[in-house]
Formats: sequence, C-alpha cells, structure tokens
Amino acid sequence: MTAARAVRSKKYVYHFGAPRAEGAAAMKELLGGKGANVAEMANLGIPVPPGFTITTEACTHFMGHAGGYPEGLHDEVAEHLHLLEKETGKQFGSTDNPLLVSVRSGARASMPGMMDTVLNLGLNDETVQGLYARTGNPRFAFDSYRRFIQMYADVVMGVPSQLFEHALANKRAELGVAADNQLDAGALAEVVDAFRTIVRDASGTEFPHDPDAQLWGAVAAVFRSWNSPRAVSYRAMYRYPDHWGTAVNVQAMVFGNMGDDCATGVAFTRDPSTGERRFFGEYMVNAQGEDVVAGIRTPLPVDGSPESLEARMPAIYRDLVGLAGKLEHHFTDVQDVEFTIESGRLWMLQTRNAKRTGRAAVRIAVDMVEEGLIDVRTAMKRVAPEQIDQLLHPTIDPERAPEPIAKGLPASPGAASGRVVFAVERAVEMAKAGEQVVLVRNETSPEDIDGMKVARAILTATGGMSSHAALVARGMGKCCVVGCTGLQVDYEAREFKVNGRAFREGDEITVEGSTGNVYAGRIPTMRVELDRTFDRFMEWVDSVRRLGVRANADTPEDAVTARRFGAEGIGLCRTEHMFFREDRIDWVRRMILAGTREERVAALEKILPMQRDDFVGVFKAMDGYPVTIRLLDPPLHEFIPTQPDEVEALARRIGVDVETLEAKVRALHEFNPMLGHRGCRLGITFPEVYEMQVRAIVEAACAVQKDGVDVEPEIMIPLVGLKAELARMRELVVKEADRVLAAKRAKIDYTVGTMIEVPRAALTASEIAQVADFFSFGTNDLTQMTFGFSRDDAAKFLVHYVEEGILPRDPFETIDVDGVGRLVRLATDEGRRAKPELKVGVCGEHGGDPASVRFMHEAGLDYVSCSPYRVPVARLAAAQAAL
Amino acid sequence: MTAARAVRSKKYVYHFGAPRAEGAAAMKELLGGKGANVAEMANLGIPVPPGFTITTEACTHFMGHAGGYPEGLHDEVAEHLHLLEKETGKQFGSTDNPLLVSVRSGARASMPGMMDTVLNLGLNDETVQGLYARTGNPRFAFDSYRRFIQMYADVVMGVPSQLFEHALANKRAELGVAADNQLDAGALAEVVDAFRTIVRDASGTEFPHDPDAQLWGAVAAVFRSWNSPRAVSYRAMYRYPDHWGTAVNVQAMVFGNMGDDCATGVAFTRDPSTGERRFFGEYMVNAQGEDVVAGIRTPLPVDGSPESLEARMPAIYRDLVGLAGKLEHHFTDVQDVEFTIESGRLWMLQTRNAKRTGRAAVRIAVDMVEEGLIDVRTAMKRVAPEQIDQLLHPTIDPERAPEPIAKGLPASPGAASGRVVFAVERAVEMAKAGEQVVLVRNETSPEDIDGMKVARAILTATGGMSSHAALVARGMGKCCVVGCTGLQVDYEAREFKVNGRAFREGDEITVEGSTGNVYAGRIPTMRVELDRTFDRFMEWVDSVRRLGVRANADTPEDAVTARRFGAEGIGLCRTEHMFFREDRIDWVRRMILAGTREERVAALEKILPMQRDDFVGVFKAMDGYPVTIRLLDPPLHEFIPTQPDEVEALARRIGVDVETLEAKVRALHEFNPMLGHRGCRLGITFPEVYEMQVRAIVEAACAVQKDGVDVEPEIMIPLVGLKAELARMRELVVKEADRVLAAKRAKIDYTVGTMIEVPRAALTASEIAQVADFFSFGTNDLTQMTFGFSRDDAAKFLVHYVEEGILPRDPFETIDVDGVGRLVRLATDEGRRAKPELKVGVCGEHGGDPASVRFMHEAGLDYVSCSPYRVPVARLAAAQAAL
Repeated sequence: MTAARAVRSKKYVYHFGAPRAEGAAAMKELLGGKGANVAEMANLGIPVPPGFTITTEACTHFMGHAGGYPEGLHDEVAEHLHLLEKETGKQFGSTDNPLLVSVRSGARASMPGMMDTVLNLGLNDETVQGLYARTGNPRFAFDSYRRFIQMYADVVMGVPSQLFEHALANKRAELGVAADNQLDAGALAEVVDAFRTIVRDASGTEFPHDPDAQLWGAVAAVFRSWNSPRAVSYRAMYRYPDHWGTAVNVQAMVFGNMGDDCATGVAFTRDPSTGERRFFGEYMVNAQGEDVVAGIRTPLPVDGSPESLEARMPAIYRDLVGLAGKLEHHFTDVQDVEFTIESGRLWMLQTRNAKRTGRAAVRIAVDMVEEGLIDVRTAMKRVAPEQIDQLLHPTIDPERAPEPIAKGLPASPGAASGRVVFAVERAVEMAKAGEQVVLVRNETSPEDIDGMKVARAILTATGGMSSHAALVARGMGKCCVVGCTGLQVDYEAREFKVNGRAFREGDEITVEGSTGNVYAGRIPTMRVELDRTFDRFMEWVDSVRRLGVRANADTPEDAVTARRFGAEGIGLCRTEHMFFREDRIDWVRRMILAGTREERVAALEKILPMQRDDFVGVFKAMDGYPVTIRLLDPPLHEFIPTQPDEVEALARRIGVDVETLEAKVRALHEFNPMLGHRGCRLGITFPEVYEMQVRAIVEAACAVQKDGVDVEPEIMIPLVGLKAELARMRELVVKEADRVLAAKRAKIDYTVGTMIEVPRAALTASEIAQVADFFSFGTNDLTQMTFGFSRDDAAKFLVHYVEEGILPRDPFETIDVDGVGRLVRLATDEGRRAKPELKVGVCGEHGGDPASVRFMHEAGLDYVSCSPYRVPVARLAAAQAAL
Repeated sequence: MTAARAVRSKKYVYHFGAPRAEGAAAMKELLGGKGANVAEMANLGIPVPPGFTITTEACTHFMGHAGGYPEGLHDEVAEHLHLLEKETGKQFGSTDNPLLVSVRSGARASMPGMMDTVLNLGLNDETVQGLYARTGNPRFAFDSYRRFIQMYADVVMGVPSQLFEHALANKRAELGVAADNQLDAGALAEVVDAFRTIVRDASGTEFPHDPDAQLWGAVAAVFRSWNSPRAVSYRAMYRYPDHWGTAVNVQAMVFGNMGDDCATGVAFTRDPSTGERRFFGEYMVNAQGEDVVAGIRTPLPVDGSPESLEARMPAIYRDLVGLAGKLEHHFTDVQDVEFTIESGRLWMLQTRNAKRTGRAAVRIAVDMVEEGLIDVRTAMKRVAPEQIDQLLHPTIDPERAPEPIAKGLPASPGAASGRVVFAVERAVEMAKAGEQVVLVRNETSPEDIDGMKVARAILTATGGMSSHAALVARGMGKCCVVGCTGLQVDYEAREFKVNGRAFREGDEITVEGSTGNVYAGRIPTMRVELDRTFDRFMEWVDSVRRLGVRANADTPEDAVTARRFGAEGIGLCRTEHMFFREDRIDWVRRMILAGTREERVAALEKILPMQRDDFVGVFKAMDGYPVTIRLLDPPLHEFIPTQPDEVEALARRIGVDVETLEAKVRALHEFNPMLGHRGCRLGITFPEVYEMQVRAIVEAACAVQKDGVDVEPEIMIPLVGLKAELARMRELVVKEADRVLAAKRAKIDYTVGTMIEVPRAALTASEIAQVADFFSFGTNDLTQMTFGFSRDDAAKFLVHYVEEGILPRDPFETIDVDGVGRLVRLATDEGRRAKPELKVGVCGEHGGDPASVRFMHEAGLDYVSCSPYRVPVARLAAAQAAL
C-alpha cells in the first residue's frame, strides 16, 4: 500500500467473474454497457471469463488531463490483474502458463467508431512458448501470436491492416497454399517475424514486448478512440453527450480455436429479423470470432441440421439455450449473446439487448406482453418510432446490397428501382408504356408533379430535407433521395454523372429513401405486411397518447391512405396542388393573367366545380373527422411557365399574345418568393380567389352532408402575420360561407383559423387568437424565417453545419427547440391565454418526426399532422411522449 | 325647458364670444383646436364674432348611432342660437336683420380631408332681402347668396362645384364681362336662380330654404366628413385615433366684402418661412377669404407699401399687431391668425400655432428661448425631427411646383434635377461630360453603384423604402424616389412611360425624395445653410439625450460627412460596397471563382491592401470614436454578372472559359438569396475571406495608431442565428487579429460582436451574448424575416396594406413595435441579463426614423446608427424621447 493508495478517493477498477462481480447491470454509466452486463452475468452465476472494467471516470479524467491517468490507477489495475491471475491460475507475462486477455471499449450505449477488440494480449516471444507448452499446440500458439500483433498494431499503433494481409498472402504464395489455416507453426513463426518488421518500418518503433506496456497501450487507445472523428460525429448524430467517456474491459482470454472441442458463436433468444420466438444463432468449430469477419469461414446454424451445435454438442447446446433464456428473462428483452466453447466448456463473453428490425420489434413487444414478461407501457417504449416507419416501406436487404454509387439525404423512405428519366413528359410517356421510372432532376418544382406521380422514386442533385421534392414525395409516400451533391445532371444529353460513372435515360437504378443510398441496377427489395400484431400494438399506442394525430393530405386518395394509417382527420389540405391538375391549370393561368376582376371571376367559375369535387372526395374519406383546408398559398408565378417555348405554347393555348404573357411573367417575378406576394397577401389583393375556394368548400360540405357524411371543415388562412389580415380574411370567409349556407338552407359547423408560420404571428399570438378558432404551426416556413434559411438554398451549407457540429441536426427535420420551439410555446401559451378554447396543432413536416412530436406534446399542442405514411410513426411518438 | 333637457346628462354645446366663453384653449379634446382657441381668444377679450361649438362627443355619438344625434342636442343648439341672436341683435331667418353664420369642422389636430367652411349660412330668398335692406347693398346681398348656394351645395350636398362655375361663366359671357365682380345685383339674382336649378337637377332635391334645415345639414356634413376616405387615410398616416371625432363651430358672419372699409386677411406673428421675428401677413380690401383661393384677386402685404393695411388703416393695423402679439405671448408660440375688418371694425376669426419650415422652426425655438418666452426643453419639443431633415436637404418651393408627373415612395430626401439616363455606363459617360443625370431603373443592384454615384437623383419603378436603391441613396445622402409603380421602363428603347407621357434618355426631370414627387423639366430648388442658431439648438439636443447616435458609413468620405453631422462613431461600415470598386471587383470575382483555397487566398491577397486603405481612411475620420465594421454579408452571386454578354466579357477579362463561368453562375443561383448562403455562413464555409478582412482591419488600425489616431475597431459578424456560428467566427477573428498584433508588436482594443437580424438570434440572445461584446440590431433584415416580407418584393402589396389600414405604416420605415420590437426588447433584456456589460445598438434604417428612435430609447438601447444625413434627425428624436 503506497501513500498514493491511501489518498485515493475514487475506485476506478471493478472486478467481475465467478462467483460475483463488483459491478452490476445498473452501473452502465460507470462501467459502460458491456462491463455492466458482464458483471451482471457473473452475479447471475453465468460462466463468464473473469476480468475487470476500468471505469468511464478514468476516461473522463484522461481526457481532462491531456492523457494523464488518475493517481493510483496503475496500482489498482495491477491489483486486479493479480486477482485475475489468482482466479485463472495463470500469470500475465508467464513463460509457463501465461495469462492472455482481451481489451475492449464499452460506453453507456453501443457506439461504432470507437476502438474495437484486441485479443490475445500478453503474448510475446517468451509467453508464446508458454502457450505452446500449456496447450501442446504450437500452431495454435503462433497463430494466436500473429493475430495479436496484427490486431494490436492496427487498432493501437495505427499500422494499416493491409500491410499484414499482404505479408500473409506472400507467405501463402511462397508455400503454395490457399488458406491461412494451411500454414503450419513454422510458417506462422516466420509470419510473426515479418509482422514485427512491418510494425518497425511503419511505426518507427518496436512492437511492445512487455505485456504491461501492451496493456497500457491498449487502454490509452480505447480512451483516445472516444474522441476519434467517427465517434464524435456519431455522438453528434445521436445527441450523446461528450462527457460520457468510455470504459475499458480487460477479460481473461478463452479460446474457441484450440481444437474440435472448441467453438465460438453468437446467438439471439428470438429471431431479430422476424421477431419469431425461437432460439437463433450461428457458430463455428475451432475458430476465433474474427474469422467470420475475415470471410475465411462460413458459420453454421446452431440448430436444425446434422452440423449444428445442437447435433454436435447437445449438452452444451442445452446449456447455452438455458443460459440465454435466463438472460432474456433477467433483462426482460431479447438478448444477443456471444459465447465461446473452450475444450468442451461453455463461456458467455457478453450479452446485450438485440438490435432488431421494425417488424421484429413490434412482434417481440407484443409477444412479451402476452408472455407476461413486460407490461404494455414497457412494450411501447421498446419500439422506436422509426422502426414503425421502416415497417411501412419496402427496404433493401442490407445483406444483398452492393456498394451504392452515391449517397444523398434520406428524404422519403422506401426503396424502388426503375429506369432513369429526366423530363416530365418522357416520364409520363414511359410510364404509360408500362416502364417503371425513376425521375432524376437537379431539383423539382410544382410543374414536375405529373412526373413525380408516375415515378417510382425521385432523385435530386440539390435541395434539403424540406425541398419541394422531399415534401411532395413524402406526401405521396414515395421513395425520394435529395441533395445528392455529387450528381451532375445534363438534361440535354439526358444523362447524369456521379463519381465518374455516367447513367443515361433508360438505365436502371435503385433508390433507397430510408438511407439516401443510390444503387446501379435493380436491387431486390423486401416489404412487410401489417398484421394483427401491428394492430394490437397500435391500439395500445392510441390508448395512452394525448396528442391527436392527423394527416397532411391533398387528394381523396391521400385521405383514404391517411385513414388506413389511423389519421384522426386532415391537418393540412393544400389547395394549390389541386390547381396544378391538367384539367384546370390553364384556367388557373387565365385567372392569374386576367386584367380585370370580371375576367378573373370568369376563370374562377371554371375552376370552382373541379375544386368542389376534390373537396367532396376528401370530406367523404374523412367522414366524422375534421378537415383543415388551407386556402391558396404559393406565389402566383409558380403557376406560370418562364421558359420561352413554354410561354409561347401557353400564349397560343389560352389566346393571349406572347408579349403580354412575357410582361406578366416579368411583373410576377420575385427576388425572394418565400417572402413575397403569397398566402393571405393574395387573399387580400385578390379576394375573389379565396371567395371561390370558400364557396367550393362549403358547397362540397353541403353536398356530402346530404349523403349523410359528418363533415367538419376548418378553413385555414396561410401566412398571417397581422391580426388585421386574419380579421379581414375571416370576414370574407364567413360572409361567403354564410351566403352559400343560406342559399342551400344548410347548417355546417365550420371554423376559421390560421397557420402560424411567420415569426410575427407567433410574437403577436394573443392578438391573432382573438380572431382565430385554431392555430396550426407551419413549422417549415416558421423554421425558414426564424433561422433565415431558405430550404431550397440552405442544403449547400446545412450539411456542412451539421457535420461540423454548428447545428446538432437539420432543423427542417427535427424542430429547433430553443428558437423555433420557443416561438411555438410562446404562441401556444399566449394564444390560449387570449382564447382558452383555441385549438392548436402543427402541420409542418415536423409533425412526423418523433423528437419533434415529443416537443409538441410537451408544449401542450392538441394535435400533430404529417404525411399519411408518417401517421403511425407520429402515433407511437405521441404515445412515448405521454409515457 | 323640456323633459329631455332635464334628463340630459351631458353638455354638447359651448358658447363663445365677448366678454367670455364657456370653453378654453385647454378643452381641445372636447371642442377641437379651432373651437378651443376661439373660446380662449374670447376669454382674453379679443374681439371674435360670437358663436358656439358643438362638441366632439356629439360627433362620436352621431357615428356610434348611425347618424343619430344625442338626445336634447336640437334643443341645446336652439338655445345657443337664441343666445347668439341676442348677442348680435340679429335673427336667424329674419327678413329684416338676418343672422348669418359660418359652419366649420374642427378636430383636435388640424386635419385636411374633412369638411371645409360653409359661409353665409342662413340665406334664402327672403333673408337675402333682409341683408339687402340692412346693408343697402343689393349686389353684396346676392353675391353672398350665390356664394352660399355654391359652397353649401358642394360641401354638404355633393354637387360638383364646376357646374356652378360653368353657369357663372355662361352669365359672364352672356353679359360680355370678364370677372364676377362686374356682375351686378340683377345678374347675380339670375345666377342664384340658375344655381338653384343646378342643385335640383344634380341632387334631385330642392336647395333647402329653411335656415334651420341648412344648419343641421351642415352639422351632419361635418360629422360625416370625419369618416371621409381622405380623412381616414390622413388619420392612419399620422396615427390619429378614429374615436376622436370632430367638433362643429357655428359663428356669426362678419363681412370683409361690404365695401372699402372692409377687408380680410391672414397674418403670422413671425415669418413662417425663415423664422424671422417680424409681423407678416397678407390682406385684401372688400373681399371674402375664398376670393384668394379662387385666384380672382392677389392679396397684398399687410405692411411695407403704400397699399398695405399699415398705410391704409393704420389704427386697425396697430390693433391687429397688438392682438396677434398678445396671442403669441399667451400661447407662447408663433400664431397664424385669420381676421376680417367689417365696416372699420377688426374681428379675429381664428388663431392657431403656425405651421413653419424646418429653418423657421429652429430659429423660432432658439429666439423664443432667448426672449424668455419658453424654456429649452419646450424649445426642443417645438421642432419636429423631420424638420431637421428638411433643413439638411434642398427642397422644391411648393409655391413654384407644377403638377408632378408621378408619385412614388419618398426614399431619400432632397430634390434634384437632371437628364434621364437608364444605363450605368451611359450615366458615367454623361456625368463625365459634365451633364447632371437622374438614374432611372426598374430597380437597382450593387452593380449600379457607379451609376448611382454620378447621378444627382435616383428613380426606380419597383422597390420599397428599404430596397437597394433606397438604402444606398440614403447612405449617399442622395435624393431618391422608389416604388414609382406607374413607371414603365424600357431599357432597350431608352425611355420610360408614366401616365401616358414618355421620357427619353436626355430629357430633364426633377425628383423630390422628400415627397416622392417626380416632375417634368427642371424645377428650381432651395437650400438652407446651417448656422449658429442650428448649432446652438443641437447643443441643447445633445445635452439631454441618453441614446448615442452613430452613422452608417462605408467610405472615408461618408465618415467625414457623418462627423460633420455629429455622429459619435460608425455603427455600420459595410465592407461589401468596397468590394464593388472598379479597381478590385474582378479580383473579388477571381476569389469567388477560385477552385481551391490557394487560388482564393491568392485573389484575397490582391484585395487586402485596397481594403486596408479603405479602413485607414475611415479610422482617421473617426479618430476617438468607435467604428463597427461588418464582415462580408451578401451572397456571392451578387458580385457575378448573369447577363450572357457580361459573363462573356468577364470570362475574357479574367481568363476563364465561358462554360466554367456559366456553371459557377448556375451553382451560385439561389431561390431566396435573402435566406441563402450569406453573412457568417460564408465566413464559416470560406474562412479565408473573413481572415483577410480581419487582417485588413487590424493592419489599418495599427497603421493609424502609429500616426496618433485613437482607434476603436468593433468587428461585427453578420447574420448570426446560432451561438456556435458566432463562437466559431469570434475564434477566427481573435486568432487572426492577435496574430497581426503580435507581428506588429501593437496593442489595439478591438471587440467582436454580432448583428441581431435573424429572429432566432433574438430568441436565443442569452446564449449568443455569452460570446458577443456587442449586439447591433439589423432591423431591416429582422423586419424582413419577422414579417416574412422581402423588401424587394413587398412593395407590391405593402402600399395596399398601408392604404387599407391593415398595417398602420411601412414597417421598414418605422419599427413594428409589437412584433419586431418585441424581439428587440427581448434580445436586449436577455442579452444584458447574460452579460451586463453588453453594448447594444441598432444599425438598420430605423435608426434614423424618429418614432423608431423613441422606441429604441424606451427599449434601453445604447445607441442608434443611421445614414449620415439622418444623424441630426436621430439626435433630436433621441432628445425628444428623453424629455
């Protein structure tokens, strides 16, 4: 006992092993997930190779002191090493019976990007002889040694692994053998010599001989790996705090590669792909785990065949199933275990809650409730909202996916293949001819809607998560990748280039919107059907959530889809998409080009019946649920072509001269359309447009009411920033609606409310609430204006911002709580204070983002509204927020 | 006394006349300005024709009850009419000695747009005989009668005045005379008949015969005129509340047109144009006031000539001067009095504080303090900040101005004439040739700077008060009119059309930026020199204000101007304007087009010495004062031409191929540049640009410090929305600045702060303050983003919004207190809470707007910053806010 030991205030090292460990599963913060679970296993009496865990606090001390260890750590490690020697009966550095250890990192949560495992640590030119002597297996001893050098040099010393692979290949070639396991002990001893030379040349230092030096080198490497760029960016992505740190696990080696009574494998207590309740795993006889990774051998299933573990080592198999079952029961979740069989003895190396597909997650959660293992509330927390999303869309089997040719932003989930096409007309043509097409554009605009409709997937070179393409694709539930920055589209040549490859019109590609990956050719996808289990799960979800969930749907078809996914109404029905339909777009243009109110009204009269029919369909699909209809929002120039040839064609079609049309195009041009003449500003300057829309809504409501449909129209005014704007529009709506109702002698309970999407509207919510029945946050535009980010332009620097950690994540994806969120809270609170019965929802894309849904729940909103395909996701997120 | 009288709770009618009145000057709210002042005159013993005032409360009752009068009002008016009859010895409706009255509107503040005066009310076919009998002057009697019919029919019954003018002209023609005063009594009696026919035909009713009916018709007309469109929009403009209402003044007629011992006139106690302390007025013998308006006669000065009142009626003149002096002394302000001399007897009809020019306002305020009439604080309140502005710019003599050809927004004050020019190069060419030019554009862009510089005035068809043209022109102190919506510019034909007239390149026009008027030809302007009086006044102003006043200045010349106008530093020095100079713009373009960091740095090295020189000049001019320099703000595409021929020329000049340049132009294109890749977003993606700018600033500071200049650079980061943005930029600035200082072995106290112009920055001010030494509100952009108004596009509907009262005024002109102002207060308070020593200012255009300055004072800001020419305006506004 030194003086240093006496003043030591903190314990930095925790032992684990039979019969019990100093740690436990609850100590994940201190011991990391791996260390805590191994300790728990030891305490459960499960055979784990003994070892010790150096705490995350030692790591944070290391980082805070420029790589210095806490006082006394060396002594503490030495004590535990000594304990380990006693427990195993082996000695670290012994030439007779050497103790070998594995060293692994382990943070609170599983985190790729940190240091991987180093196995067989403790070997050197002397101890390798001890290993040989003890096992009587020289080949095993030298094979273990060469593996150790390669692994340690790679992950601790930064010597590229390929150098060693190259040397091994040379040796194989020299000896004329095909595989490493054909190299004998002598050859492997030569390989070890060659490896040491490689280390010397590449790193400028000798490979460390002293097992203690090896151990401390590995510990420092684990600690340093906490701040590797990959780990840092992974933490940023998942919002794990930097101060966590990682633990180090030092564990006595057991060997699955000492002979045919040895094996190693992984197993799951249930099928992680389907959720089926069956023991499931793979193993290899006489092997070490990394042989699988190296692709040298193919593992075998643990059961169901003559070569299975069940068949070959039935007693051990039964033990394994029993231990795994005990672990699942103990942790009340599916376990993913790693095991090794050394000379007929089973060791459990680690256990963790198994990663699983969305389908499996739901099945397992429901099954476990039925088995009485967990309660319903726990079950709901076990499924991530994004897993629900995965469930609803086809995906690419990651096992069968080749290297992607490019990667963009995952704008709308799903996966689809088709022939590349660039022009909308061509897309329509090819689709009519029965081809499956993928629309590839620099960016999309409302003019491209027809092309997007017929495409199976959409791929754009520019744009962010809230670009036109992304929004529309999500609305259509269509797979979409945007902001694929390497992509160069040449419309004229009808081809795109990416990473040196060219794809022409007609070439097949596959787009995966869930990951942002783009593949050459046609890659098979898989899709899961929704079943009784899913329905049961969603019933639980609906029973606990407080937030309502509606859908953004513009068409009767969308409305039907939304209902199928459980939407409780429509939170946003955008009327402008209706305007783009082929049967009316030219009348819309005539309306815009009208020189007088009379001409405008005449054109609107033509649009009225078509618009009314749209609403009839939507109302029918939403029988008994509210439908929020937003009056015309986009600037008028979005409806008018600007390309000379299109202008000319339009002029001919609607019978105006080209000069007049060109003049109008110029007059409508705006420098910043986002901040221009749109929304209620149009309603105020051209009241007859809104009048027509109100008439269509109310006439449609009257019509379906006659058919027994229960209709609840909510008329929503966009882009309000001033109370006077809404007051005036409200007056217009009420006047027109009541006129129609009086004429039809009908009674419809309609309400009038507003988007809150301009910062000023949020700031003056108490004023605006006085003339509003409801608020609906348009968080897309609110984010644009609060940040001063144009969603069409910001992609260029937003990616950089997120990568550099300036922004934790894209604020168009997950709501920015401090800025935009502050406005949402403020407007909700002050609006309700002015009018307690005010209904408050959100209809921006954030309504389908789980983290944002949680915020909306906390901010006290009444409902969220999102794309139909996001409705189940939002339902689960709302339930989890309420738990 | 009826029962109604008994329950009457309110007094609606107030008598005035010798020896005293029921009202007083302090009762303006109830009696209106006119009524209150007439009552005050009566109480002072000044001879006013007696009469009575119907209160503003009667008007508000009338408006609130669909045109119904308060109970008992008729009785009360009848009583006062009776009192008036007793006092004058005449009877209303008498055929023997008829009482005639004038009826005038009169609100709290003088307000054009309401009902004008009706004179001679009480005349009809019978009473006219009484007037004839009493005066023995049939011509006078019938002349009064025909005037009454015309005036009453016009203002009360809505019969167009021209119909009467036409009938009069017919009569003159019939009798072969040139002027109305050549028509004798018989002819005038015929005119009266003709007039009555006109009234019958045009209005469908008989001209009212009953004097009572005449009186009540006039009262109702006055009340109704309160809500005439002109009155409503005038109130909106000056923010007078709608609930004020107007009073009605009924006053016994006195006649200045009964003979040569009669006269009428107006006088000022001091010269309202220069402020000189001399009695000043005009009068006409044997005339009624409206003869001047009709242009029939030219009034004569009251003194200084043989034809003057002084010469012709010396006793009356002395009385008039004495009474007016008494009034000035009583009201302690210059009086504008109206008087009538009836048969040798002087009557004062009304008095009010005189309207005056800016020059006169300052002179009078200073003189009155010296005379001991008012104290300094009162003097400061007597000058409107806008009058100071008027003082600093040439104006068009309103007496000599023709009809304007067009009217736009008054973007930058002053008036200037010149030849129309459309293209920048042509403007430069013509200016070099010694021509004075006016640059006419649809809108301006930074590329037009050279043209704007050489132009004497700038006129644009589009854009609002904060458009590029407006901002730059104000910065240059150059006259500018924007948003002249009728203007159609044809660049190719080199002409503009407006209201059916065409103006070609080279035609002369005159632009008045203070009013928005545009005139054909060259209209003479006048300009006032600043003098000792002005300096004295501004000394007082500076002694009371708490707010600092700085200037926005980008060049050494601007800085010198700013100092001359009393700026206490530069609040905004925009570095991008420097980038557009001819000697460097191509280097800037090379920098932007650079493919690598190295190429970019090489181009920046060329710009560095030029930029350093700019700063040297600015620092020298601001010796001893802080200079806030904003690093590069606009999106890069603003620096690159987009027109094919310009692109080609540039490509040739800087030696890149056209395709590369075109590709870059496309890559830089943004849908909403306002919300795009600019400000600190550039600094983060291209740190070397900001590094160069910091180096130039600090090197310049070191250089001038050596010359003994006291330099205080404040380096400002634009468009910050996130703490991480500012933290990173601050690090860059400090690193580069300290590097330069270490190399030069110098010590400069620089600070680093940020614009607060993105709503999110205001909402997270407590975070951002942690890494900021100062905040400067960029209220232009903050207004754009808070409202969602693009200043370049919003002009189209903002005009409509203000006209319709949806917005009380253009928020780019006067800060929107409820929305943008809330963010300003919130950021100031929360920023200071996080960092008490935080310096807070404003550098948007609002810094020069008096109402906004008042708000900034109340919000507790440290300083405002505005165009150099607005500095004295802001100083006065700040002082008035402090009073």
